[in-house]
Parts: sequence; structure tokens; C-alpha cells
Amino acid sequence: MADIRSPHAHRLSDLRAALAKQNLDGFIVPRADEHLGEYVPPSAERLKFLTGFTGSAGLAVVLMDRAAVFTDGRYVTQLALQTDASVWERRHIIDEPPPAWIAEHARPREKSGARIGYDPLLIGEEGLARYTEAGLDMVAVSENPLDQVWPERPAAPAAPAVPHGLQYAGKSALEKREEIATALRAAGQDAAVITDPASVNWLLNIRGGDVEFTPFALGFAVAKADAGVDLFMDPAKLSPETREWLGNGVTVAPRAALGPALGGMGGQVVRVDPAGSPVWFAQALRAAGAKVMAGTDPCSLPKACKNVVEQDGARAAHARDAVAVCRFLHFLHQQGPCGTETEMSAAARLLALRQEVEGFRGESFPAISGAGENGAIIHYRVSDESNRAIRPNEVYLIDSGAQYPDGTTDITRTVWTGPGPAPDDVRARVTRVLKGHIGIATLVFPQGVAGAHIDALARRALWQVGLDYDHGTGHGVGSFLSVHEGPVSISRAAKPVAIGAGMILSNEPGYYLPGAYGIRLENLLLVQRAELPGALKPFLRFETLTLAPFDRALIDAALLDPAERAWLDAYHARVLAEVGPKLPDATLEWLAGACAPLKE
Amino acid sequence: MADIRSPHAHRLSDLRAALAKQNLDGFIVPRADEHLGEYVPPSAERLKFLTGFTGSAGLAVVLMDRAAVFTDGRYVTQLALQTDASVWERRHIIDEPPPAWIAEHARPREKSGARIGYDPLLIGEEGLARYTEAGLDMVAVSENPLDQVWPERPAAPAAPAVPHGLQYAGKSALEKREEIATALRAAGQDAAVITDPASVNWLLNIRGGDVEFTPFALGFAVAKADAGVDLFMDPAKLSPETREWLGNGVTVAPRAALGPALGGMGGQVVRVDPAGSPVWFAQALRAAGAKVMAGTDPCSLPKACKNVVEQDGARAAHARDAVAVCRFLHFLHQQGPCGTETEMSAAARLLALRQEVEGFRGESFPAISGAGENGAIIHYRVSDESNRAIRPNEVYLIDSGAQYPDGTTDITRTVWTGPGPAPDDVRARVTRVLKGHIGIATLVFPQGVAGAHIDALARRALWQVGLDYDHGTGHGVGSFLSVHEGPVSISRAAKPVAIGAGMILSNEPGYYLPGAYGIRLENLLLVQRAELPGALKPFLRFETLTLAPFDRALIDAALLDPAERAWLDAYHARVLAEVGPKLPDATLEWLAGACAPLKE
Repeated sequence: MADIRSPHAHRLSDLRAALAKQNLDGFIVPRADEHLGEYVPPSAERLKFLTGFTGSAGLAVVLMDRAAVFTDGRYVTQLALQTDASVWERRHIIDEPPPAWIAEHARPREKSGARIGYDPLLIGEEGLARYTEAGLDMVAVSENPLDQVWPERPAAPAAPAVPHGLQYAGKSALEKREEIATALRAAGQDAAVITDPASVNWLLNIRGGDVEFTPFALGFAVAKADAGVDLFMDPAKLSPETREWLGNGVTVAPRAALGPALGGMGGQVVRVDPAGSPVWFAQALRAAGAKVMAGTDPCSLPKACKNVVEQDGARAAHARDAVAVCRFLHFLHQQGPCGTETEMSAAARLLALRQEVEGFRGESFPAISGAGENGAIIHYRVSDESNRAIRPNEVYLIDSGAQYPDGTTDITRTVWTGPGPAPDDVRARVTRVLKGHIGIATLVFPQGVAGAHIDALARRALWQVGLDYDHGTGHGVGSFLSVHEGPVSISRAAKPVAIGAGMILSNEPGYYLPGAYGIRLENLLLVQRAELPGALKPFLRFETLTLAPFDRALIDAALLDPAERAWLDAYHARVLAEVGPKLPDATLEWLAGACAPLKE
Repeated sequence: MADIRSPHAHRLSDLRAALAKQNLDGFIVPRADEHLGEYVPPSAERLKFLTGFTGSAGLAVVLMDRAAVFTDGRYVTQLALQTDASVWERRHIIDEPPPAWIAEHARPREKSGARIGYDPLLIGEEGLARYTEAGLDMVAVSENPLDQVWPERPAAPAAPAVPHGLQYAGKSALEKREEIATALRAAGQDAAVITDPASVNWLLNIRGGDVEFTPFALGFAVAKADAGVDLFMDPAKLSPETREWLGNGVTVAPRAALGPALGGMGGQVVRVDPAGSPVWFAQALRAAGAKVMAGTDPCSLPKACKNVVEQDGARAAHARDAVAVCRFLHFLHQQGPCGTETEMSAAARLLALRQEVEGFRGESFPAISGAGENGAIIHYRVSDESNRAIRPNEVYLIDSGAQYPDGTTDITRTVWTGPGPAPDDVRARVTRVLKGHIGIATLVFPQGVAGAHIDALARRALWQVGLDYDHGTGHGVGSFLSVHEGPVSISRAAKPVAIGAGMILSNEPGYYLPGAYGIRLENLLLVQRAELPGALKPFLRFETLTLAPFDRALIDAALLDPAERAWLDAYHARVLAEVGPKLPDATLEWLAGACAPLKE
């Protein structure tokens, strides 16, 4: 068997030679691209190119005599499989943060500390601060030395940017631009730099296809206090029709024009997001004599609060998606006891069923299809090596989602394959997860409450018996955009941003027994105003968007309160009523049983 | 009727003359003393002296041509009653913060802004920052101009400081000093300034009587990395016996020696709490050439986590206090239907009953005794003017507590006076408050959870029907110290400090219908490790310390879940078993009925 890892060792020595030429003693290679995004195009997969590691969270540090790759607990095994131990040390990014590791291992110069290079386009101001606060001499490179030794680097993606019609967007780009401009003027700012492509696409009502899973066109924008927007995006992506759609208030310039444009903003007050934007922007603006004001991306909150057209779109997308999901769950119900499917074949079947759904534009993330012990790996991604049969009488977890022009979906179901009954302890744990799910789904809460305040409601039933899960309870979801969208999440570590009407959040408590099975029960929720007679202040509630049954084989009805049972029965009745009529007869028959009221 | 307000107008003009002499255009008069504490001695009641206002939260701003008193929503009515509208404008401290008000109204000088004086002993570094950030030219005075025009200012209190024996403290002062010293050395600090008298008294195992309700001796300390402590306290307070108790590692110097002592700390690294300590300390240390490091009071967390002796003391104090409370509740049960008691007479009766309890050393705060609409005033303090009869067939709320050498108590009960039945809507609301109380009391949660994460559990049943309460759910409680103790509280605004084993927290959800009645149900909780078989990480639970029945006349059993009813029945059975044997026969008979299992 050929050693597939040797190319990476070669690349490392090439990089070190390039560092020496730039008078650097080290270099950090984050996983992020210049948008600091979750999914990056092949042209920005520097960490993978250098180390072989493909996890979604990681960073490499290259010193002249040693090198390390850092990732978190989710990817420890993958890191060991994908990287060459003779070249790369493997480190836990939380337990041993890269700044401390560099401070310990970088060789200082004779009369000064080591010079550690970084690409200011690939790290945010807050991220960089962790290195400088550790006392490191961080040197911004103007040309990325890794790119210099990457001759076969893929070209930047150039999928067309297309109009996102008003029937989906619900609000014209002009109106959005004027709202952002009003916010900028209120803050005494002349402009804001928008580096998140989801914000750029939301603001201008366009979509694209530059990366997997998230249907946006990569690009930057400068939103101005006069409601004009300068868009920096490869003009080849913009057809005359899209240019027309953008309108007169939007200028288009290639990516290469961005630097000179920032250079011309001297004297202006410009908002830059210190967490979400590469530090290059603040550095370039300051060098040009602009006044940089730290502030959140002005599109972040309005993008999260879906308008009524987007809300209706989300409902419609979920109703259509539910047909594929229910057909899939019926299929699983039939095949589970036979043991003929694998994690990969099941995920492929679900994808095939979704491809039959009107408007399907792709998955919203790589499906997590985990049988038995693989289900306990929270961010499991099945591969040829890990793929295994879904066996009879075990727990199977599938977390998947789809992109439709009217909405983005994300659903997790956990099923018992049968034919035998599920063990009582597994049913008890699934039921406790379900109690947490219902605790969030039924919550009514006043305006002002943030995600950190309600996370415990999803965990209480698990905590009561000493169990917990090591991930957040929920994340924001975009509208035909990223399946992970800020600024609100449901987690103890959530930002102090209030949950607002129109937001779409996931509700996904779980439980994972390593080596045995994983449980996760996930629906998407739409935040609505709650109409409560006599209430003296605004209250909010959740509308569940996702429509698919929870596997009753894994539910112990005796552990549910009457109110919890009532919620589940009503939810199942709604699933049957809304999805049933669109299903083939055999599937409908199965669904009717799956959605019947629980028996004690 | 004589105008009792005129003296204050005179004082204001005297103050303005003193300001002119110090070349100031304005001055702020906070309510705090030089410990920034909750209860202040008469010698520090500057706000009351100047304005007549006695609320526990407030601040006056004096400019040359106008003056204002600021307080929060709790004290709006009291502020209007106590201050002279012809002299003092009344402002809401949240809606119209003093820095903004000064910025708007202070008259600038010809070539510079107005000079606003402040006493650096009466405001913290974070508090001062709000003024400077508003662009104000804040001038620290070395002599408080208000004190200069207060000839009849009372002397500082000088109650004796006495040993707090090991049978109560549970840990020697030497051991505490060594632990603090270890923490200082670990942080690379030579010393910490301790300005909270509760911390000073906890650290040195002493108590005193300088202010009402909180049994500490006022004083400052400098804790050093070699475990020595310099105590700055009027030596007249310290008997030879107390000096002996303090031991050799503690030097004593008068308050006046504090400034010179800080002046001699040049070159040292000194921890100062930027929120809890007057800014004077950091200013004096910096001027002396010391390096000031911001950090929390090193005693704050260890003081909050009671040791096993203090925990046993708390249980014993609550068991004794419960005798007085149960006798009082029996008395109320008898007298309620007659309408013969008043808010003041009832509070006096409770106090008299507590005075019979072994070890009673005083109330831990002014009792809140509110009948009907007065119960809806969250921080109601009955006065001769407001006192009213407790009438038949209404809701009566009493929140009170006591100091014992082995523990501090704080309990609120809400009762229906009878003889008729309570209205269904009142019972429903009380029961929802009770559900919240039980939600906290029964919670099991992992180490790492903070108060902000669990506050919602106390509100959920109220939120469900559009109700809420406008205060936190719980606060820390000291051990024969302040009834309000940091650093942990249960509230959405709580600091991000994890709840830890040994902490004592109140659990006091409520509901208030203005003009009608108030509901609050409060017990104190002791945080314990939860022993959960198979748990993979440490979990915590609450042990309820307070022992007194909740009024069943206000509980709608049908609104309680089976688990909630089980908790209440078990709690009542425990109250009967633990308190009953110490009660007179008639009271025991009543308690048996009050603690019987609920009927549907």
C-alpha cells in the first residue's frame, strides 16, 4: 500500500523554505478561509493541503524544527488517521492552545523573540489577540508563504451568483440596504465592512454555489451610510441579469480591487466585526487613516429574524422535506430488522428521496449516519473506512438537512432497528432526551431571554440521573443559507443576544454512550410572538417546523408527564395530518401507526 | 405641620459654597460608604443627610444651578415623599443615568468642560468609568466637601470586634490566610486589598456590630503573599482578647494609617477588585508606584463555599429559627380571619418570637411585612405612614430573617388570612410560583452551571401564562454575615461564576399584581454534591435549609405534577418531623394539619 502521506512532508519542507525567505521563524495555518467561514472552497483548503487533515476545526503551527496540528475532542481520531505522526505532533486545541504551544517551543532569536507569521486574511482580530497576549511577536504576511509553495492550488470557485427572488426573500435588497444604512447613521458610521458571504448574499438578495452545502456566492461588501453597496466579487460570476437585479445602488468590482478600495476610505468611520472579520480589514483601514469601530455585522440580526415570506417559505420547505424524511423512516422501519442497509446506503437513500422533492438544491450539510457505536460520535461523517451495516436490534441516528430556495432544513431522528424491543435503559434515556426536546418546544418566555438562559430546560431530565450531552442544544438556521447561522444559539456559552421573533433555531438535545450508541432528537423551531391574554410585556414561543415522527419503539410513555404526552400526541397528529396526504398509500399506513397516540 | 425638608435645602447651598472653594462645578453623592456596602453606618449616610432620601439605592448630583436625586423603580414613590421637589429633581437611575444627565446639564467653563467632583472612597473603578466614558472631567477630591458642611456628622461606629469561634467558623484564620496567600502567589501578586468588611471578618474569624443587620466590624485589610494580614480598624474596637485571637500574623493599625500603608507598597503587585473596591485604592497604589492588577476579592469565593462546620451551623440555625417562624405562622392562622393585626404588629410579633430563640442576634434585614397591595411592593418597608391592618380574606406576604452565630436565615411566606377560601386565580398564581420554587429545589445540575443558566426554571410556569417577576430568583447568603452575599446569584444578570458545593442561595420566585397583592415563596438552599451512580462528571443538588409550611389555602393541588406534589408532601413531612417536637402542643397540632399531604 502506497504511503499517501508523504506529499505532506514534502510540502512542509517547502513551506519552511518559504518562511526562511520571509525572515519568519514560524507560521500558523488556520482552517478558515478569508471569510472565516464554516465551509471553505478547495482553493482555501490550506490545512488539508499541508497536513492531510480534513476536520472542520483545526489549525497547524509550523516552526522550523517542529510542527503540530491542533483540533478539538471531536476530531482526535480523525487527526491521528489523516496526519503523519513522524512530521506532525497532534495537540488538543482547548487543553493546549496554540499560542501557549508556540510560546513554549518557538526558538527565540539572539536579541528578540521568534517571528511568527500569520496571514491576516485568515484570522480575526479577537483570534489574533490570543497570540499577541501570549507575548508572541506576530508578523502579518502580505503574501501567504503556503500559497507560494502550492503550485497546483485550485482556482477560486466561480459559480454564478443568481437572483434570490422576492417570493423567497420577502424584502427587496433596496429596503434592506436602507435599513442597514439607517443603523450605520444612527451609530455615527460612514460604512461597514461585510465579510460574511451569508450577509452579503442576504443583503443583496443573491445566492450562489461557491462552496458545498451553503448556497452563497463568495464575496465581500462595503455597505455605506447612503445605502449604496460596493460588492467585491469576481465579475464573471455576475450575469447581466444578476447585475440588473443588483440595481444602481450596487457597484461591482473584482476581489483584487478590495485593498485599494479600503485604502481610499481614509477619514471615514468604518464598522468592522472584531470576531467575524479577518484582521486584515481593520489593519488596512487603519493604515489608510480610517477610524475603525468595532461592531457586529449589521446584517447579522436582521438576517436571523426571518420576515413573514421567509417564515412561510420555511414552513413550505419543511412540509416538502417531510415527505422525503417520512418515506425514509418508513423504509428504515422495513429494512431495519433485516440488516441489509449500511450507514452509507441509508444516507444515499435519504438523499435520493430528497432529490425527488420539488426545489431540492442539495444537502445543507454532510449527513451524519451513525449506527450503534458510530452514533455516539457527535460529528460522525461516514466514510468508506468507517461504513458499517445497520444491524437489527440497535440504535441508529441520522442527522441530515436540505437546501430549498424557500428554506433550509435540519432534522435528526434516532430509531430502533428492531425486530426485537429496545432495552428499557435505552428507552429511558431516549425518553429523557425527548423530555428535554419537549421542554424547549413548549417553552413560552419573555422578550429579552437569550439562549444561555434556556439551555438547562433541555437538559434537566438528563441531569436528574447524572447524564448530559457535550454540545449546545440549538443553533440558528439561515433561509436558503447556512444551516449554522448566528448570532443566537441555545447553549450555556451562547452570546448574550436575545432570542427574537422570526428566528429559526434548532432544538436538538441528545445523549451519547461512547462505544454503544448515540441519541439526538432534532426539530427546527420558528420563534413567534405569543399572544397571552393579560400579559404586561411581549412574550415569545416556538413553532415547530419539522414534521416527522419520533420512534415510539424508543419512548417509555410512563416517563412522560401528561403535558409531555399531550404535546407528543398532538405533534404526531399534526405530522400525520400535514404529511400523510402527500405520501404513497403504504407509507401513509405506516405513518398512521407511527403517529397514533401513545399507549401507556 | 413643620416643614421637615427645609434643612436639606440649607445643606445644599452649604455644599455648593464648599464646591466653589474646591474649584468644582458639580459633585456626586452616592449612597455607598467607603466599603461600597449595602448597609451603611449613620456616619456615612451622606445621601440621607443631603437630600432626606433613605432608599437603599440612590445617588445625588449637585450642580451649581440644579440638583437631582436618582433612584430605581422600587423607590420612586419614596423619593417623592422624602425629597423637596423645589430643590431636587427626581430621576430614574436606569432610564436617565447620572453621567448622561450631568453631560447634558453641567455648564462648561469658558475653555474647558465642567469639573465634576467625586469622593474616590465612595465609588468603584467600574462605576467611575461610566462618568469618564461619558466625556466628563471627573475630579477626585481629597476631602469630601459634603463632610465639610456636616458639622453634626455622627462619629464612625465603634462596636467591639469579637472572635468568631472555630465551632462556628470551622476553619482557623491562619488556614484561611494561608489559602489566600497561596492564591496570591499563584497569581504572581504580592498582596490584595480587601475592602469588603464581610471578607475581612471572614478571613480573620471576627464579627462585630458596626451596622444594622450584618454582624461585621467595619475595617480594611491588606492580605499578603506571606499569609500576613495588615488590618486597618479602630484599635478601640479590638479588646486584648480579640487581639490575641487575631494572632501574630495580623498587624492592627487605625483607619488613618491606611493611606500611608498603601503609599509604602511601591514596587509591589497588588490585587484590587475593580467592581467592589473604591477607586481610591487603585489610585493610591498607582501613585505609590505599585502595580495594580484587577482581580476579584480573593475571599469572595472561599467565603461563599461554606465548610462542613458552617453547613452544620446553617442547618442548626434554620432548625431553631423554624420554631419562631412556625409559631408565627400559627399565630397568623389564628389572627388572620379576625383582622386585628397590622403589618407592624405582625412583624413585631415575629421579632418577639425570634428573640426567644437561642442565639438570636438580630434581624438579618428589615422585615418586609406587606398586606394586600403593600405586598406587591417588592422592597416594601412598613412605616408608621404606610402601616395598615392585615384584613380578613386577603394575601399577606412576610419576608424576614435572623442572625445567629451559627448561621443567617432568610424566609418568605405568603398566606391567605381567611376565613373564606382564596380566589381561584390567586391560588393558581401562587401554585405557579410554587412550581418554580420546586423547579429550583429539585434541580440536579453539573458542576460549571451558573445562576444565569437556571433562573428560567423558576419562571417557566409563570411565563407559560404570560406572568413574570421583576427580581432575581436567588442570592447568596453569608454565614453569620450579610444576607446578600456574592459572587453567585440566580438571575439572568448573574455573574458567570459557577455554583459550587457549600454555597447557600435563596430560592425566591414571586409574582406581584400592583395594587392588589404580592406572592413570594422563599427558602434557603445549601449546594451539595449529588451522588449519582454512573455519572461521568460531578453533579450538584440543593438541600433545602428552611423549615416552614407553605400555606395550603393558596395551593391548587390539581396544578401540580405528581413529582411536584411528592416534593411538597415530603418537604412538609420533614418540617413536621424536625420542627414539630420543639413546638407547644397547640402549635404542633396546627402544624400537623398544615403539613398533612395535599388532597386533590
